[in-house]
Amino acid sequence: MTRHQLVEQIFKKQSYLCVGLDTDITKIPKHLLSTTDPVLEFNKQIIDATKDLCVSYKINTAFYEAMGVKGWESLEKTVNYIPDDHFKIADAKRGDIGNTSSQYAKAFFETLHFDAITVAPYMGEDSVKPFLECENKWAIVLGLTSNAGAKNFELQKFVTKTDLFDDEIHITREDTRFLYEMVLETVSRWGTPNNLMFVIGATQANEFENIRKLTPEHFYLVPGVGAQGGSLKEISEKALTTECGLLVNASRAIIYASDKKDFAKEAKKIAKQYQSEMATYLRN
Amino acid sequence: MTRHQLVEQIFKKQSYLCVGLDTDITKIPKHLLSTTDPVLEFNKQIIDATKDLCVSYKINTAFYEAMGVKGWESLEKTVNYIPDDHFKIADAKRGDIGNTSSQYAKAFFETLHFDAITVAPYMGEDSVKPFLECENKWAIVLGLTSNAGAKNFELQKFVTKTDLFDDEIHITREDTRFLYEMVLETVSRWGTPNNLMFVIGATQANEFENIRKLTPEHFYLVPGVGAQGGSLKEISEKALTTECGLLVNASRAIIYASDKKDFAKEAKKIAKQYQSEMATYLRN
Repeated sequence: MTRHQLVEQIFKKQSYLCVGLDTDITKIPKHLLSTTDPVLEFNKQIIDATKDLCVSYKINTAFYEAMGVKGWESLEKTVNYIPDDHFKIADAKRGDIGNTSSQYAKAFFETLHFDAITVAPYMGEDSVKPFLECENKWAIVLGLTSNAGAKNFELQKFVTKTDLFDDEIHITREDTRFLYEMVLETVSRWGTPNNLMFVIGATQANEFENIRKLTPEHFYLVPGVGAQGGSLKEISEKALTTECGLLVNASRAIIYASDKKDFAKEAKKIAKQYQSEMATYLRN
Repeated sequence: MTRHQLVEQIFKKQSYLCVGLDTDITKIPKHLLSTTDPVLEFNKQIIDATKDLCVSYKINTAFYEAMGVKGWESLEKTVNYIPDDHFKIADAKRGDIGNTSSQYAKAFFETLHFDAITVAPYMGEDSVKPFLECENKWAIVLGLTSNAGAKNFELQKFVTKTDLFDDEIHITREDTRFLYEMVLETVSRWGTPNNLMFVIGATQANEFENIRKLTPEHFYLVPGVGAQGGSLKEISEKALTTECGLLVNASRAIIYASDKKDFAKEAKKIAKQYQSEMATYLRN
């Protein structure tokens, strides 16, 4: 899916909601357990109920891999069930040396028909580039994540020293910045706002204005609204652009809105609340 | 597998070789393609030929995921085929928020019977901890990797400033270090040398003495010997400990030693060369 197509869907639906299919077989309604593929059945009903209210689905691969081969089957059937006018994200946090990242790109962009995959930046350029080389496919690179562990490395403040020489005068310039800022600046040189997004956690609202200054045109995939406590209002005020520029994900708050037979109906209600709120921000 | 059991295998076999099963269906000998599961058949013959010469197998998940459900089936059957006295590594580079990393731990330690998984550190403590909480299972966290991209972040040099106050005297202490050093120091506090290893690329030989000082007791999983050009001799001289402390991986150099019917025999020859060389270093 191209950036233009994604933006078109967002303004048509007045929604920048991404529904996260973190489907855990131990948490889905009991009556589904007698079906051949309970996870797929659950996902289908969630997709049917929410597809008019969201522009994207994000499949968290961990929950499927935990079930082994059967889980990988459910994952494949789920991604094939998602309508093609939705932006399909593999939330897989992959990244390895070049020839291995190329295999991951093949796995998620060719064998499975995802539009985008989340990518970990630690290993640098050759680990990210293979995800940027497929037409109309996207890498969504971790920038500043929503979890407590973001403080360990992403939010470490560093002083970088640069030696400058000007007519035999030696000056050392000191810049203070967070690791995640270096990641945003460096990674944004490897792709364009048409094939590269960043993961920015909703719980990091204090940093959103700064992040938008560093990467004014990029889309952000924003998890952390809902169960993790981030504010949709705050991040929308700070980071919406004229082309929207945000995909806000909610997983548990939507898919586990009810653990009874009415789960899809309740999921729709919550998705509708998000969409309605998003519509007001898009109009401003 | 416990550290004690691993060390025992290493000294018994006089080998710290890990064979990397980065099995690419487009690169295996043509005569295998008519079998039901060519990748599994290839892996079985490689394992049969090399199992007495190595102490570990490392399965690179990317190559299996690239084949979709069928690949995941080959992966499961391969890990089940590896003898239990070998240390089984899922080279998966996973890592996500806590509840998701727990699902990955379940996927690789319970559903599949791996002893260890490679983990990306960027997201911090709660993304790594779930892999450290399973008895006799290991997290192998990326420290300094073998690829060119290591220079982008891992080898960035930072000055960290710490404000110290001593009887109203304010001192700022400056420490210069690489990001990977901060990762080693920080992550080593989350686990012990009995459940935590680090990935250190063989192409980074200049750093090995420093790394061994920072983490004197940890095992390192060392890729980058062979196709990537690292020297077994150099890294062994710089980082072997009394308990060995190294698992040196070779993938392409062994498994693609020949693309003909004799591939397993040729793989064995190369594995034997590595093992013989390792035996001399272990005796010193």
